[in-house]
Amino acid sequence: MRDSHPDRFAQDPGRGAPADVGEKDTGRVEAFSDGVFAIAITLLVLELHVPQRAAGVPLAAALAGQWPSYLAFLTSFATIGIMWINHHRMFSLIQRSDHTLLVLNGLLLLAVTAVPFPTGLVAAYLPYRDARIAVMVYCGTFTAIAVFFNVLWRYASSGHRLLDPRIDGRAASAITRAYAFGPALYFASFCLAALSVAAALALTVALATFFALPPPREPTA
Amino acid sequence: MRDSHPDRFAQDPGRGAPADVGEKDTGRVEAFSDGVFAIAITLLVLELHVPQRAAGVPLAAALAGQWPSYLAFLTSFATIGIMWINHHRMFSLIQRSDHTLLVLNGLLLLAVTAVPFPTGLVAAYLPYRDARIAVMVYCGTFTAIAVFFNVLWRYASSGHRLLDPRIDGRAASAITRAYAFGPALYFASFCLAALSVAAALALTVALATFFALPPPREPTA
Amino acid sequence: MRDSHPDRFAQDPGRGAPADVGEKDTGRVEAFSDGVFAIAITLLVLELHVPQRAAGVPLAAALAGQWPSYLAFLTSFATIGIMWINHHRMFSLIQRSDHTLLVLNGLLLLAVTAVPFPTGLVAAYLPYRDARIAVMVYCGTFTAIAVFFNVLWRYASSGHRLLDPRIDGRAASAITRAYAFGPALYFASFCLAALSVAAALALTVALATFFALPPPREPTA
Amino acid sequence: MRDSHPDRFAQDPGRGAPADVGEKDTGRVEAFSDGVFAIAITLLVLELHVPQRAAGVPLAAALAGQWPSYLAFLTSFATIGIMWINHHRMFSLIQRSDHTLLVLNGLLLLAVTAVPFPTGLVAAYLPYRDARIAVMVYCGTFTAIAVFFNVLWRYASSGHRLLDPRIDGRAASAITRAYAFGPALYFASFCLAALSVAAALALTVALATFFALPPPREPTA
Repeated sequence: MRDSHPDRFAQDPGRGAPADVGEKDTGRVEAFSDGVFAIAITLLVLELHVPQRAAGVPLAAALAGQWPSYLAFLTSFATIGIMWINHHRMFSLIQRSDHTLLVLNGLLLLAVTAVPFPTGLVAAYLPYRDARIAVMVYCGTFTAIAVFFNVLWRYASSGHRLLDPRIDGRAASAITRAYAFGPALYFASFCLAALSVAAALALTVALATFFALPPPREPTA
Repeated sequence: MRDSHPDRFAQDPGRGAPADVGEKDTGRVEAFSDGVFAIAITLLVLELHVPQRAAGVPLAAALAGQWPSYLAFLTSFATIGIMWINHHRMFSLIQRSDHTLLVLNGLLLLAVTAVPFPTGLVAAYLPYRDARIAVMVYCGTFTAIAVFFNVLWRYASSGHRLLDPRIDGRAASAITRAYAFGPALYFASFCLAALSVAAALALTVALATFFALPPPREPTA
Repeated sequence: MRDSHPDRFAQDPGRGAPADVGEKDTGRVEAFSDGVFAIAITLLVLELHVPQRAAGVPLAAALAGQWPSYLAFLTSFATIGIMWINHHRMFSLIQRSDHTLLVLNGLLLLAVTAVPFPTGLVAAYLPYRDARIAVMVYCGTFTAIAVFFNVLWRYASSGHRLLDPRIDGRAASAITRAYAFGPALYFASFCLAALSVAAALALTVALATFFALPPPREPTA
Repeated sequence: MRDSHPDRFAQDPGRGAPADVGEKDTGRVEAFSDGVFAIAITLLVLELHVPQRAAGVPLAAALAGQWPSYLAFLTSFATIGIMWINHHRMFSLIQRSDHTLLVLNGLLLLAVTAVPFPTGLVAAYLPYRDARIAVMVYCGTFTAIAVFFNVLWRYASSGHRLLDPRIDGRAASAITRAYAFGPALYFASFCLAALSVAAALALTVALATFFALPPPREPTA
């Protein structure tokens, strides 16, 4: 009998009644993740500082001088936003959750919540000699996010472990292939930062822009 | 076969089972947006600073001297609150989401999360010579929000692209016309700030108050 | 025909399909309010400051010296928590939302989001001569919350305007009577602060404790 | 007649229609708790400070010198994350809510929202003589969370008070036994802190790691 089975404790019946076949089981993981993504993306604004009033410096000049903050704010916002869209998509295909999925999702959220810190680093150090270190930490954080994304997806999709049974195996494989580029490209931006801070940031912005474009459509079978 | 189609990956089946005709498809976009609106509106309080204890300045006087902070807090709260109500309404008519909708919604949320920054600018600079710049940034942010709102609505409603099929075309057009005033009026407050800071803030407060009134009802057909 | 009616735009069909008779219509208002309550209650912790390292002051003494912060934190947490429980209960009886409900709920949330500010005032000024002003602002904020609560409930329940039709009229009246004490008692704490800061805080703590007790049960008819 | 009974006011019909037998009744408690957990876990990042630019100190060295902040951030993130997973599991078994459950859940959330404060203490004081006090406050907070967890679960499960009736009594007892170790182990880390800060932190990290492992499965009956 299913309900007398302690296993049920390890499952995630979501917010509704215990999961039946075909019913989604990931409501509360998605809600918690939405909360963390929403807060991390909104806390970024705390890295935009109101300039101190200073004799002889007009506000317009002080605001213009803060351009690294705006650049870091916009790049981080775009990257977290894209990550949320991908998380959202990924979980539209995942039907069940288990303990390992929760822990892997937690690792992903750990890297996402950390983003305001390297964002502040880039905002503070971009015009200075130490910009290289700041941008490496920044791109390294995004690399970690991309890696955890892939680990999460591979765990859920491998052998159709937690996927909606109606998802076609080829569609799942196409997603696996598409995701696989993320860690490599963000790692490239991390390495590039050691050579050129501007090139690394440009690649990060390009990645966010690229992933913001609509996904390619394959011809229907 | 729908489920073997990678297109499904580009759709947003929300939190429930895959979307059927007539079923809402925007649950998680709304949840994420609610989170961002709720956090942005609640972070505004961080712009209210506890006055430093200073010899000879009673607390009541110090608190009264912070009136620009309260004015900026109330105006921003009202404006974000009204924007949330409109977002809520708009999505009560939108039935499906796609990648472009998510990206346009992300642009809207970008401008919403930025609001605490110009709010802090206005709070800090309102009594000073640089108030003009602060208020222009403030009204400019609201103009951006209003513009992104219109872009989002027009994308969703154009040709009934993502609307609930039960929504009448004339009702959708009436909303399009009503929304169209927002960007123009906020842009007017932006321009007005260059002439008179007080007039620009008064217009912003008036707009929030006006939009807080119940919407007009048209006679039933 | 209902769907061609722009009125629908003024309604709140929540997250599901358009509301039918008997269906809840307040899902997204509750979700947004939950978010604001949850963030406001969690931001309180930012008023607890890590003591600066100072020569000759052991950490234990520095922490003990911060007792006004802990008192303010606990009192505000309890009060916001109780307010959330009441909000939750109130909306379990409200079935539909309209524009006015959204605006009144917004006023309530405005006062709730403001709580971290007077909490910080009390934490900073409690041991000093200006404590009276700080506690009056604190109790005044809670008075405003209690007043907005009553306005919201009376709007929703008057003539059964937005209530679940299955709610008994006498039950609704009993709640109206029970809520009516809130503003009076918080206003009493506000006035008391002018006489005795300790008495006003004690009353505020007593109110939170009292409302945390289970509600009285009336005999079934 | 159920609906005329004021008792209904004390119940929690969640976000849907009034609760029927077998229907979940805890939707909004879970949503509010998710919000508080998500915000508390995301606010931890505010304890990671961007190092001040200082002549002669390269950024890499300044970042490396902040290792206590990273250790405290990771430990707190893991502990709150694990607590969320447990909360999530616990509520997958709880079907109904009542006033006492809401208040006990509030006490648990109180301790969870406080976590950023002792995290900041540990980050600031770990390399100094006062580390003992900081780590005792830190482990004491986790002890409080573990205690409130047990109180909440015992209230809900005692006599199957609020559990889903389909939950087997032996399964519930197994959970009670498993949870009982938490307070004892966190209290041990609290005591250990008085002897060795390193040992206490190591135990805390070990506990988070241990609880992150999948739960043991009992053989099916």
